[in-house]
Amino acid sequence: MDELKPWSHAEFEARLRAMGDRYHIHHPFQVMMHRGQCTQAQLQAWVANRYYYQINIPIKDAAILANCPEREVRRHWVQRILDHDGYAGEEGGIEAWLRLGEAVGLDRETIISQQLVLPGVRFAVDAYVNFARQRPWQEAAAASLTELFAPTIHQSRLSHWPDHYPWIEPEGYAYFKRRLNEAPRDVVNGLAITMAHFNTRELQERAIAILQFKLDVLWTMVDAMMLAYCPVQVEGWGAYTPMNAVAAAGS
Amino acid sequence: MDELKPWSHAEFEARLRAMGDRYHIHHPFQVMMHRGQCTQAQLQAWVANRYYYQINIPIKDAAILANCPEREVRRHWVQRILDHDGYAGEEGGIEAWLRLGEAVGLDRETIISQQLVLPGVRFAVDAYVNFARQRPWQEAAAASLTELFAPTIHQSRLSHWPDHYPWIEPEGYAYFKRRLNEAPRDVVNGLAITMAHFNTRELQERAIAILQFKLDVLWTMVDAMMLAYCPVQVEGWGAYTPMNAVAAAGS
Repeated sequence: MDELKPWSHAEFEARLRAMGDRYHIHHPFQVMMHRGQCTQAQLQAWVANRYYYQINIPIKDAAILANCPEREVRRHWVQRILDHDGYAGEEGGIEAWLRLGEAVGLDRETIISQQLVLPGVRFAVDAYVNFARQRPWQEAAAASLTELFAPTIHQSRLSHWPDHYPWIEPEGYAYFKRRLNEAPRDVVNGLAITMAHFNTRELQERAIAILQFKLDVLWTMVDAMMLAYCPVQVEGWGAYTPMNAVAAAGS
Repeated sequence: MDELKPWSHAEFEARLRAMGDRYHIHHPFQVMMHRGQCTQAQLQAWVANRYYYQINIPIKDAAILANCPEREVRRHWVQRILDHDGYAGEEGGIEAWLRLGEAVGLDRETIISQQLVLPGVRFAVDAYVNFARQRPWQEAAAASLTELFAPTIHQSRLSHWPDHYPWIEPEGYAYFKRRLNEAPRDVVNGLAITMAHFNTRELQERAIAILQFKLDVLWTMVDAMMLAYCPVQVEGWGAYTPMNAVAAAGS
């Protein structure tokens, strides 16, 4: 049947890129952050929650390595672990994130303790890590393709935050600068794997569903933060107070 | 030190029961449902999303069996799988839940397709299943203790829904009636395991944290439903429209 012909690489890539419409850059909490509407407490909460994502990225990447029998793929992919964890004289992205936390006024111990991490954030991030553990490595690689959309969000923070949030210490921006360099390189690698593996229409549609799953992970994280840290009114109820907006100790 | 003396069984159980303050019966969406404020579409959405929890309960229980080397424990615990999946002439809880879905006007195929299941609901339920897979069986058994609070919520539905929602077909209530009988028996078993295993103050506090984790799972599910199905206003933004409130295909 006609509709089962695979898309060309160009069309497949264009369809993946078109999913940027659903990237969390469009989430109300992120848009308000971009516009300068966030309080210091809200920015701190975002940094402390997003930390849980940052520390799980190398674990997710290690799960991909653990499922991948191809040395050439691992030789490239391991760079992501080095980027986040650091090596030798290089401090790495997690350390840069902690310095962002300090630049917004958090102390390092508070961030590392995860005491501010919301259950909904934890569940979403864990879903991504478990996906990488439980699915073929090519599927987990495809899930990383939200990196297609990341340079825009990092650049917008670098361009606008110093005006909106002049109280943020400038050394806090190192993380976003790092990712501006790393993400495009990772995208080339992630796209090559995705083009090679998802080579029938059915598989290409599977890749689209996987990228949607990853977009859902990022969006759901920000949903949880919005409910916990932005004043929210529910019709028929009134102000929402998140009774369980405490760190989950159980997972 | 005095503060490390284990609580007596009575005090430990009382502390577990006191956590009912955080049960999802107190969530705005559940309270509105209890008061008769939900539309048919909202009730349908709740039933279709909660279905994802129902079908994962026997998988969670099978993970507990798979991690448990004690035959006597398994002989009791397997009853939960039989209760949900059914056996021989007994249709089981999942089938009863599908009939609840039909009684609120959904068709069976729509429920089974999971097309209405929200990403945030999926991530929370998966967190519970992965907890049961990855943690010792006694911890997963303790996580089941939200059953302490379940009879109250089931009884309140049986008492109030026929008045508030007279359009629900009466045969839809079979699930809640079943659980009124099953949950207290399961609680006796789950409490006995918890009392025997969590026998130092440190372990008892671990059990409290595990029950909090499970309460967070249930609460986070209803958070996701409230954001998707109740009109919500965010200060500084306006009406919230959940862009990604679609079924997640990737997990």
